[in-house]
Amino acid sequence: MKIVVVGGGFAGLACAKALGGSEHDVVVIDKSNHNLFQPLLYQVATGALSPADIAEPIRKLLKRYPNVTVLLGEVAGIDPDQHQVRLQDGTTLSYNVLVLATGARYQYFGHEEWAQAAPGLKTIANARDIRGRLLRAFELAELSQDKQEQQRLTTTVVIGGGPTGVEMAGAIAELGRWTLKDEFRRIDPACARVLLVEGGERILGQFPAELAQYATEQLARLGVTVLTGRRVRDVTAQGVTIDEEFVPAGTIVWGAGVAATPVAQWLGLPPGPGGRVAVDRHLAVKGVSDIYALGDIALLEQDGQPLPGLAQVAKQQGEYLGRALRQGWEAAGEFRFHDRGNTAVIGRHAAIFDFGRIKLKGRIAWLLWAIVHVYLLVSFEKRLLVSLQWLWRYVTRARGVRLIP
Amino acid sequence: MKIVVVGGGFAGLACAKALGGSEHDVVVIDKSNHNLFQPLLYQVATGALSPADIAEPIRKLLKRYPNVTVLLGEVAGIDPDQHQVRLQDGTTLSYNVLVLATGARYQYFGHEEWAQAAPGLKTIANARDIRGRLLRAFELAELSQDKQEQQRLTTTVVIGGGPTGVEMAGAIAELGRWTLKDEFRRIDPACARVLLVEGGERILGQFPAELAQYATEQLARLGVTVLTGRRVRDVTAQGVTIDEEFVPAGTIVWGAGVAATPVAQWLGLPPGPGGRVAVDRHLAVKGVSDIYALGDIALLEQDGQPLPGLAQVAKQQGEYLGRALRQGWEAAGEFRFHDRGNTAVIGRHAAIFDFGRIKLKGRIAWLLWAIVHVYLLVSFEKRLLVSLQWLWRYVTRARGVRLIP
Repeated sequence: MKIVVVGGGFAGLACAKALGGSEHDVVVIDKSNHNLFQPLLYQVATGALSPADIAEPIRKLLKRYPNVTVLLGEVAGIDPDQHQVRLQDGTTLSYNVLVLATGARYQYFGHEEWAQAAPGLKTIANARDIRGRLLRAFELAELSQDKQEQQRLTTTVVIGGGPTGVEMAGAIAELGRWTLKDEFRRIDPACARVLLVEGGERILGQFPAELAQYATEQLARLGVTVLTGRRVRDVTAQGVTIDEEFVPAGTIVWGAGVAATPVAQWLGLPPGPGGRVAVDRHLAVKGVSDIYALGDIALLEQDGQPLPGLAQVAKQQGEYLGRALRQGWEAAGEFRFHDRGNTAVIGRHAAIFDFGRIKLKGRIAWLLWAIVHVYLLVSFEKRLLVSLQWLWRYVTRARGVRLIP
Repeated sequence: MKIVVVGGGFAGLACAKALGGSEHDVVVIDKSNHNLFQPLLYQVATGALSPADIAEPIRKLLKRYPNVTVLLGEVAGIDPDQHQVRLQDGTTLSYNVLVLATGARYQYFGHEEWAQAAPGLKTIANARDIRGRLLRAFELAELSQDKQEQQRLTTTVVIGGGPTGVEMAGAIAELGRWTLKDEFRRIDPACARVLLVEGGERILGQFPAELAQYATEQLARLGVTVLTGRRVRDVTAQGVTIDEEFVPAGTIVWGAGVAATPVAQWLGLPPGPGGRVAVDRHLAVKGVSDIYALGDIALLEQDGQPLPGLAQVAKQQGEYLGRALRQGWEAAGEFRFHDRGNTAVIGRHAAIFDFGRIKLKGRIAWLLWAIVHVYLLVSFEKRLLVSLQWLWRYVTRARGVRLIP
């Protein structure tokens, strides 16, 4: 059977691995050549890690399975009737089973023009871009003779109070307060402002209120101004309009909303909430045949709630589907997500963990966060490199990757 | 006294460090925010190291000297009479003493249009670009169904048989033969062709003939085709015309000729060979006052030979000038370059060293090369990270940084 997997993220990779060494002929297509460990992408964006520390070539990860072919390509369209995928370069691939795992991207609620001034954080290119913007803003402030312009340049606005927004705001505050300290002569990076803007009543809406409260306090301790229940009205290269107030800013980071890649459109199906496509308990897309959807693009309810767009959901779905395609549906049963706990880190000694009944915060949560994230990296070499850089940063408060861009 | 140093490379950094803590007011200007360890740039271009492993922020390196200010900026012009430097953004800086250390860039002998298809290797951006081209060529070959196109894509031509060309050719051959082995299904990366083209009679013209001969043999052992006494007539995105023969190629790397940055033009002086400006034994530029030139832009003869464009020349000149400006010319005396030996590496277990009377090649030279290069890195963290990645690569033959771009 010919199985085409589109997307080499957590879901697609897990599915391909589960199919590795099987009798099926598997093709994995991704528009980038690497699998990215997105949970640490904010550390690349803030100069703490190198891109390669959290990215591995997909073909290297699947090298040992001779039945798996990896292709660099971007999907242009799908013909569900003909069972064909068309790539941007004109190549056409036939399939017996198609697995879609193309993930989510940032959306700007109808203001796509904001993307230029306020990049989201999904790819290595995004992270390099944001790192360059942050560091360049401090450089331009040092060059400037104008106090107001210096203040604008050293102000960062992070839009969206989810885990990514919280992690970015915390890391940016630490960058100014600690890493860049004493390196400038005309500005004081420790006085740099960081604003975190959230439209909802509180940040970290998916976490219990007490953990969110703790995160808010920790952000305040780092000097981050947390604004909740405030709407972003406009975003330009010069700053952000929050409700009626214009806040001049040198760097703006978007972490406010994601939407599925246009899978519904490819399949000619009506998109669900967030552009997702509805799947059944076998992860098969409803309304077409032989097509499955995994991860951020799949809409699946469990216990009356749609499953969230998390790495662990994607990974478990990929593993399940790979196993099911290999061993049959009877052996696999229906898909069920098992929550392994939810975490976010604010900064040094400060993280939160929500395991349902057990909730952790502070130093222990922070240490656990670090151990879990090192463990989840795909290779031994990366684990060693990341651990070493974290230890070094812990001792010196330096950040080793301060390249523009 | 106000001293403006333009360029934060080996020469400029050494000069600024020597002036650190002195009574002078020092400003260092560079168009990038980092000091780059160029001797290992070819390893970034071939996916063995991350850019940050060989680059440190200039302001971090000079952080401890309160009398030194670092500015990100590019020189637009110099007014030697008014003693002023003008930057691209319009900023003007006055100086009592101006130190120029802006280095060299690749030149294409009047064929600047070749730069698009055949990038040189001078900056981090260049290295990322070349890495992306190399890896993408293999990806496109795997996608292609056409044997001829696959062969073109997996052919790399390196133009210029100096140390950079030799190091690039060797590393690219190892990339195909070892690193990418077993990862492709439709092509065999071990069959990828690498050509090294040199216009002169032999490669590594600045090394003794016996060492160059050894390097040629080692390149052949890795599968590199070395062509000497051959002229490049044309370069396009499709390949290289060598004498009358067109060689289709997927990646082309330029390492054939460098020229000084346009310092002579800034100063209104006639450029010497390679665009350099003549300096006296105190490294003062002849024909203007209070302006010094260091490194690749300075033309200085010693024992009847112009000093070569090497890192060690640049560094020694920077140290000398900083000391002279601090302690006076009498204490400093005249500049004299002390040759610490010249080296190039071909690949695993194969390097050459020329210490004048003593010549080394093979395993011992290779080990010494590695130790010297780790030692020369600017910080302890980088030494640790690079050593670790080298050990890992030595054992596994993997390369950890295979991102496109």
